[in-house]
Amino acid sequence: MQRRESHYFNNKSEQNFSSESLLNTSKKPPFNNWQELYNWGRCHCRQRTFQKDQIIPTRPGLLYIVNKGAVRLMGLASFNEENKLTEDEPIEEIFLGILGTNKPFEIVEHSYSIIRVEAHIEQTSVIWVYWHELVDSLSIYIKVLELFRRQHQIQLVWMSILGQKRTIDRLMGFFMLLATEEGERTENGYALPYILTHAQIASAIGTTRVNVTRLMGQLRQQGMIEVDNNNRIYWKTNT
Amino acid sequence: MQRRESHYFNNKSEQNFSSESLLNTSKKPPFNNWQELYNWGRCHCRQRTFQKDQIIPTRPGLLYIVNKGAVRLMGLASFNEENKLTEDEPIEEIFLGILGTNKPFEIVEHSYSIIRVEAHIEQTSVIWVYWHELVDSLSIYIKVLELFRRQHQIQLVWMSILGQKRTIDRLMGFFMLLATEEGERTENGYALPYILTHAQIASAIGTTRVNVTRLMGQLRQQGMIEVDNNNRIYWKTNT
Repeated sequence: MQRRESHYFNNKSEQNFSSESLLNTSKKPPFNNWQELYNWGRCHCRQRTFQKDQIIPTRPGLLYIVNKGAVRLMGLASFNEENKLTEDEPIEEIFLGILGTNKPFEIVEHSYSIIRVEAHIEQTSVIWVYWHELVDSLSIYIKVLELFRRQHQIQLVWMSILGQKRTIDRLMGFFMLLATEEGERTENGYALPYILTHAQIASAIGTTRVNVTRLMGQLRQQGMIEVDNNNRIYWKTNT
Repeated sequence: MQRRESHYFNNKSEQNFSSESLLNTSKKPPFNNWQELYNWGRCHCRQRTFQKDQIIPTRPGLLYIVNKGAVRLMGLASFNEENKLTEDEPIEEIFLGILGTNKPFEIVEHSYSIIRVEAHIEQTSVIWVYWHELVDSLSIYIKVLELFRRQHQIQLVWMSILGQKRTIDRLMGFFMLLATEEGERTENGYALPYILTHAQIASAIGTTRVNVTRLMGQLRQQGMIEVDNNNRIYWKTNT
């Protein structure tokens, strides 16, 4: 959609010079690119930096954009008191994914699901805006929606991987998806974009940490993955 | 985003009367609403009607919209020959969700995931367009993206439900999500929007058909669900 986007982007630029738009600038700033949005966020106390593993406070109705580092989405399904069958087990925490720089996210209210956002790496920075503040920034609004569309596509693949019965298939699918979608191609195969603990991987694919350690050992022996000294995982494509 | 959408919609309408737009109409028709898109699809052999459970042929790069009935997305994770550890087990089929009238879907190419679309009910009709054919239909394009954004939000909740270790929690989460998102509120609780077989529910929540039948019996005994003579499931909210 490159063509149409720039088409509307151009229309938008013209519009910005109209008297009406200029008068409204202070209320609803038109952002033409990420940088303008980030600069505005910085000047309007809409940016905050987080330490690794720190919880990022979120509210429904706001749009968040990672402008440095990466965030981790964690799901906590919690049933209503009435619908809860037993309460003797701890609530599961589910790793839902990682979003890197320039990726948008938002939290929707749902009675039985809480999504928690955490900084995945040191010095992760997040900017937030109200959706209506993008009213004059069509190109950014479309860009954000297109990124959500992309996340939706990846999620469908992700869900079909999660549905696999065998843990080893879910583990391989998880590595392949991360490697090919977000990884960096190196001589050593695809480097996974982020360092993940075995516990995080286990929570993502619905198994135990011990199982992940064991199965990763198996994949290493078979030459399908490699792990370097910094715990970075490489997915070997040609073995 | 009601306000901004109509704002751009109005801009768009004005644009349609410009000479340039009129000249281009035959090539890139501007659609101002679903009905115009559906009418165009009908006149340009871009609509097809399917029988229940019939496979809907899809290609990457196209946008599909359900204009009657409902479609079911099924995932088939299939690993490359090289990455496949054993081949003695059948490939899993995973129920990824149902999309009703006016819902868009698209299929992305991914080496290790195949998504298959099937008509969920009799006389399901689907319209398709190339993405670039929406170049002059900004309001429809944004509408489609906003629907994908909504699907993305639901998927996050859905994934946090799928991550639950106990099958009964996944089953309850599945019913609750379907009931509250798409269901119809009745005196009898929320009616689930579609008839689902126990096998489909099992595939959605990663368990066996036998288990679903057993657990549904349990939920019925506890008064949490009801099933009528047409196999429609009701989620009881006040029990």
